[in-house]
Amino acid sequence: MSKRIITISREFGSGGRTIGKMVAEKLGIAFYDKELIEKIAEETGFSQKFIEEYGEHAPGTNVFSYSFLGRDANGISMQDKIWMQQRKLILDLAEKEPCVIVGRCADYILRNRTDCLNVFIHASTEKKVERIVKLYGETADKPEKRLADKDKKRRVNYRYYTDREWGAAQNYHLCLDSGEFGIEGCADLIADLAK
Amino acid sequence: MSKRIITISREFGSGGRTIGKMVAEKLGIAFYDKELIEKIAEETGFSQKFIEEYGEHAPGTNVFSYSFLGRDANGISMQDKIWMQQRKLILDLAEKEPCVIVGRCADYILRNRTDCLNVFIHASTEKKVERIVKLYGETADKPEKRLADKDKKRRVNYRYYTDREWGAAQNYHLCLDSGEFGIEGCADLIADLAK
Repeated sequence: MSKRIITISREFGSGGRTIGKMVAEKLGIAFYDKELIEKIAEETGFSQKFIEEYGEHAPGTNVFSYSFLGRDANGISMQDKIWMQQRKLILDLAEKEPCVIVGRCADYILRNRTDCLNVFIHASTEKKVERIVKLYGETADKPEKRLADKDKKRRVNYRYYTDREWGAAQNYHLCLDSGEFGIEGCADLIADLAK
Repeated sequence: MSKRIITISREFGSGGRTIGKMVAEKLGIAFYDKELIEKIAEETGFSQKFIEEYGEHAPGTNVFSYSFLGRDANGISMQDKIWMQQRKLILDLAEKEPCVIVGRCADYILRNRTDCLNVFIHASTEKKVERIVKLYGETADKPEKRLADKDKKRRVNYRYYTDREWGAAQNYHLCLDSGEFGIEGCADLIADLAK
């Protein structure tokens, strides 16, 4: 395989995580997403739920993060601490074995490697609404709001830690509309291109 | 073919125009780029060189456009006149026959059609510099400046007429790094996906 590592960035509801899992299966390589979170949780001592909630947020995007999280004895914010652990872990994983890594600015963290295929998955609001309602059910918030809120956090986190625009085509080798090509279609395409 | 129309937006120097031409040849369909400009020139009465120069610029991006171009008897700026002609022509072409259309905000103009595959082609600055120096030679301006100037005009034009961000993955079904996949590789991929 010419690309050892595949990073997948994705809009909420676009099916990017599922596509990543399929690609890993097709190529017979490791897949890091929830697994990644668990590892980070273990290493930082934060709870898994906490990291899941804040691992893709940036300082200041949530009042809670300022008022309660605070800083450690070295003046490093909790968010920055999670970022540093995530970064170290992603660099180590990429060194260790071929894998698919979903989210967590992995495209940026691994930008100096030449063996990465960086992918961004998106879809129309209509398709994403359909998907999240089917997968996660209805909630008090309208699906459009849930999509916008989640992606806003990802965008702000990405900008804060990378100084780049989340979803700008130039950051990725390949961007795909999963509503157009389908989940399976995207997975096939990515797996073929990684070979 | 499930997609009759392929629109190609491209960074200057990314080889997007060449890729578009190859795709049209592979699929045996029409290709509109310089040809498009000529048609617009004929219909508006502007010279071909003039349209080539201003057809992808927005009002106000160039002092010249304000001071000299002026407005017609109905108060419509020359730039807007070119835009309206381009828009009408692109809508007509898409109606008339399967084709590849390069640039000119065609992805936006044809956004209500379901038979379009919208593609964005980009590449690293290094690859683009290599390409423009090889194709167009050295000039007084550094290649990096020529790239930045040209893309800035495209970005401003796109934003002005579409209210969207040029190069944002969400605007296209497919975005490709031609430096990664190669010119021929991109053309093969697009032609396969359009089928």
